[in-house]
Amino acid sequence: MEKTPEIRPWIARISPEIVPPSLKDNTADVDRLVKAAKKTLDSEEVSVDFPLVKHLPGRLRKYDYRVDAVLFWDKKRWHLIDILPHQDGKGIYGLAVDLGSSTVVVQLIDLSTQETKDETSFHNPQLEMGTDILTRIHFAAQEGGLEKLQGILIERLNQEIERLVQRDGIEIDSVVGMSAAGNTTMTHLFLGLDPYWICREPYIPVINKPELIRSVELGLRINPGAPVLVFPDVGSYFGGDLIAGILASGMTHQSEISFLVDVGTNAEVVIGNSDWLMACAGAAGPALEGGVADMGMMAGPGVIDKVTIDLSTYEFKTRTIDNQRPVGICGSGLIDLVAQLFLAGMIDLRGKYVAKRCGDLLTEIDGINHLVIVPPENSGTGQPLTLSQIDIDGLIRSKAAMYTILTTISNTVNIPMNEISRFYVAGTFGSYIDPISAITIGMIPDLPLETYVPLGNTSLKGAGMALRSEDARDEIFRIRDQITYLELNVNQEFMNLFSAAKFIPHTDSSLFPSVNPVRGGGE
Amino acid sequence: MEKTPEIRPWIARISPEIVPPSLKDNTADVDRLVKAAKKTLDSEEVSVDFPLVKHLPGRLRKYDYRVDAVLFWDKKRWHLIDILPHQDGKGIYGLAVDLGSSTVVVQLIDLSTQETKDETSFHNPQLEMGTDILTRIHFAAQEGGLEKLQGILIERLNQEIERLVQRDGIEIDSVVGMSAAGNTTMTHLFLGLDPYWICREPYIPVINKPELIRSVELGLRINPGAPVLVFPDVGSYFGGDLIAGILASGMTHQSEISFLVDVGTNAEVVIGNSDWLMACAGAAGPALEGGVADMGMMAGPGVIDKVTIDLSTYEFKTRTIDNQRPVGICGSGLIDLVAQLFLAGMIDLRGKYVAKRCGDLLTEIDGINHLVIVPPENSGTGQPLTLSQIDIDGLIRSKAAMYTILTTISNTVNIPMNEISRFYVAGTFGSYIDPISAITIGMIPDLPLETYVPLGNTSLKGAGMALRSEDARDEIFRIRDQITYLELNVNQEFMNLFSAAKFIPHTDSSLFPSVNPVRGGGE
Repeated sequence: MEKTPEIRPWIARISPEIVPPSLKDNTADVDRLVKAAKKTLDSEEVSVDFPLVKHLPGRLRKYDYRVDAVLFWDKKRWHLIDILPHQDGKGIYGLAVDLGSSTVVVQLIDLSTQETKDETSFHNPQLEMGTDILTRIHFAAQEGGLEKLQGILIERLNQEIERLVQRDGIEIDSVVGMSAAGNTTMTHLFLGLDPYWICREPYIPVINKPELIRSVELGLRINPGAPVLVFPDVGSYFGGDLIAGILASGMTHQSEISFLVDVGTNAEVVIGNSDWLMACAGAAGPALEGGVADMGMMAGPGVIDKVTIDLSTYEFKTRTIDNQRPVGICGSGLIDLVAQLFLAGMIDLRGKYVAKRCGDLLTEIDGINHLVIVPPENSGTGQPLTLSQIDIDGLIRSKAAMYTILTTISNTVNIPMNEISRFYVAGTFGSYIDPISAITIGMIPDLPLETYVPLGNTSLKGAGMALRSEDARDEIFRIRDQITYLELNVNQEFMNLFSAAKFIPHTDSSLFPSVNPVRGGGE
Repeated sequence: MEKTPEIRPWIARISPEIVPPSLKDNTADVDRLVKAAKKTLDSEEVSVDFPLVKHLPGRLRKYDYRVDAVLFWDKKRWHLIDILPHQDGKGIYGLAVDLGSSTVVVQLIDLSTQETKDETSFHNPQLEMGTDILTRIHFAAQEGGLEKLQGILIERLNQEIERLVQRDGIEIDSVVGMSAAGNTTMTHLFLGLDPYWICREPYIPVINKPELIRSVELGLRINPGAPVLVFPDVGSYFGGDLIAGILASGMTHQSEISFLVDVGTNAEVVIGNSDWLMACAGAAGPALEGGVADMGMMAGPGVIDKVTIDLSTYEFKTRTIDNQRPVGICGSGLIDLVAQLFLAGMIDLRGKYVAKRCGDLLTEIDGINHLVIVPPENSGTGQPLTLSQIDIDGLIRSKAAMYTILTTISNTVNIPMNEISRFYVAGTFGSYIDPISAITIGMIPDLPLETYVPLGNTSLKGAGMALRSEDARDEIFRIRDQITYLELNVNQEFMNLFSAAKFIPHTDSSLFPSVNPVRGGGE
């Protein structure tokens, strides 16, 4: 992640010199404040929205015209957000928000020092109305559904923000800005916009580039005049979360070509550099997130996130979150597990169990092979944790889809994989994936390990960057307009690539020279 | 009144060419509309406020993307007001409003043709809470008082607008703009702003230059996105009504120097040309409006608005409004009456009754001389209509104040009266004043009659001009910033001028060569 050393904020607190009224200068209160602010900001363009006009005289007089003004710059004008007592020693704050469909993360940023002050996260309360995006879109179409989806999210955000500012001893009115990044549907639900057409041909969002919105218009209980920056979307399948990822990666500041990948139910891929960007998104299936496997679950206490197999004893060594007894496996653990099974020769290059290597651990339930990963006596549930052939097949389809998308986009721009200088992995989930395991199963290309850069929560990082800096804010709109979106045509060529990628690591093993299984079981 | 032949409207209806969505072009609905509007308007700056965003997709789809867009230009950006079915044959309309403290006048203007379509007027419902401005300011300071003053005005406006659009067969949503001019206090009460400090030293309004406000923010029931242009004020004593008057007069387009006078409880005077403007306001007393005299009343049926005295018979000839039997006299009638009394020698140059000329018509009530103007048998009330010495004294003080203000301001800029090329009289009341009578009593300078130009309701005219044309809208802010406000110092010099002006027509009769009384009674 590259960053310019100097940050030009677009939300500013200033101390204008206001001469109190006299018979010699009976300029009106609002005009007086605007005049002083223009001088301090050295700008002719200072605007006061009407709802603020009513309250200004009382507050100006209360503080004896010794006030600070907080304003934001929208590229054409400074807009007054509020006035505060002159240099009261209290800061001004902003919120960066990752509008995840599963988890929402809120960061409190001190806009005077640019420092991150606190952070909180919570499950998206919309999960109640549907775990996946499609269910929520259908829910929104019901009578009052959209209002409920927006309302429950905003209300929870308000509660969490209130808790955050109380914990940090901050007044809610000193929270004067917000920046939020989410996928296209989450953005719509946050704004109370109907997502109906997002999932219906020809897939038209209500809006791609929302302007700055005052917090009061969204029902947010921060300073009512605070501007809310909502990340723009490219289209229905490529949202503001990805724009935030591109911003956070810094790939648009480099002449070398990078990949940015967000791994999830949808595999979202961006390739490009400072001159051009091409993006593509396709269904990878929920297998990569561990959502489908029998023992699969979201990361949490007792969830296996790392697996190794002792090649001498064929014993599974599992690491669980919080070191609790294992109760399931998350996506990164599953990728590890399948990679290890392959390296140990317990599955073949088609991903099928090799009976002679698996021995007693392989049992058949309803005619389907299951491998016991954790016996009941060691498990946190009292039941054995098993991985079925179906689970493996699902993961292989998902990893094949991911690799096919990467191949398709690099073929389209005619850039061979070995010319990729950086392979950024966006998203919290991506950070947990061991690139060696991902390469082993053929999910991502076999590049030098230092090429892989996990970025963590890039929605949050990008939102924070755009909240702090005008340049970053401008850049998200430049990024958005620069992206060429590649529509994936599931044609014969795609299907051929996909079929070739459904092997471990690939039918063409020369693409993965670093992967060396111990005597492939099927051979 | 000068007018540029070509009008550049700032509220426009356009027919953007919107390509309906397809898989090849899945631009979001709002962005699609904005893109087409930018092309049609040849401007990169087209903005859609958030409240509209929600409703656009449904309406775009309802009309199959064949829509017109109505937008307004704020000097930096075009803002969407609404979308309408494509070329539905219906026009777009605006309202010009004269926010008088006694009478409110509303004009309906067809913004497609620039023609005035209809007009209505009504007593300001705030009269209920106080006939004069000061009483209303005090009322506003009571609990809920301000809300009540604003609410009753807005509600009545809504009713009248509704009646107007029904009468003209117009849909309320096609009313897409409003322009309102009033004095500083009326402007505050219209906007719901606290007028408390307007009448208290150092006389500070809340705001002098309001930005465009969306109608919905004022509770107006026209198109909620319609911009409301509120005329700026110079200060507490010089409001948007006068700015409208200056605009309507066209004096700022002339190199010759003009006076603009608004005659009322306050005498407001502007002098200047295309290069400079100086303004001044001072209390002239309510006598000029006929509000104080025993028989004085506001214009209405049976009110005397014109008086002549037959110099051979000393008989009063009165003209009444609607030719009804006389019930009282309005300001213009009073000026006529006193001028005629002076020319007939029935009052002397101090304005005192000359008993020998008045004969039987003069009676004494409670020790004060009264002249019977209409005997009981001819009056509409059954009572005689009489003019007391006190009434005359009041009028003389008022006219002296007016003349003194005119003298003071012309002295200040060192322009002799005879260099004034036009003497514009603003306001409905001003139109009824006979300039010959006004000169006779020494209220206005003795200039050639063609110099006097009555302008009628200049608040309404100015409001209409600024609603129609961007140039006129810009000009009101230029006018506002150009005005030098002359604070009237009631010092010895002012008092000397005032004393000299308390004679009819003046102590220095050489200033009024055209006034030739038939043997002044007092001589």
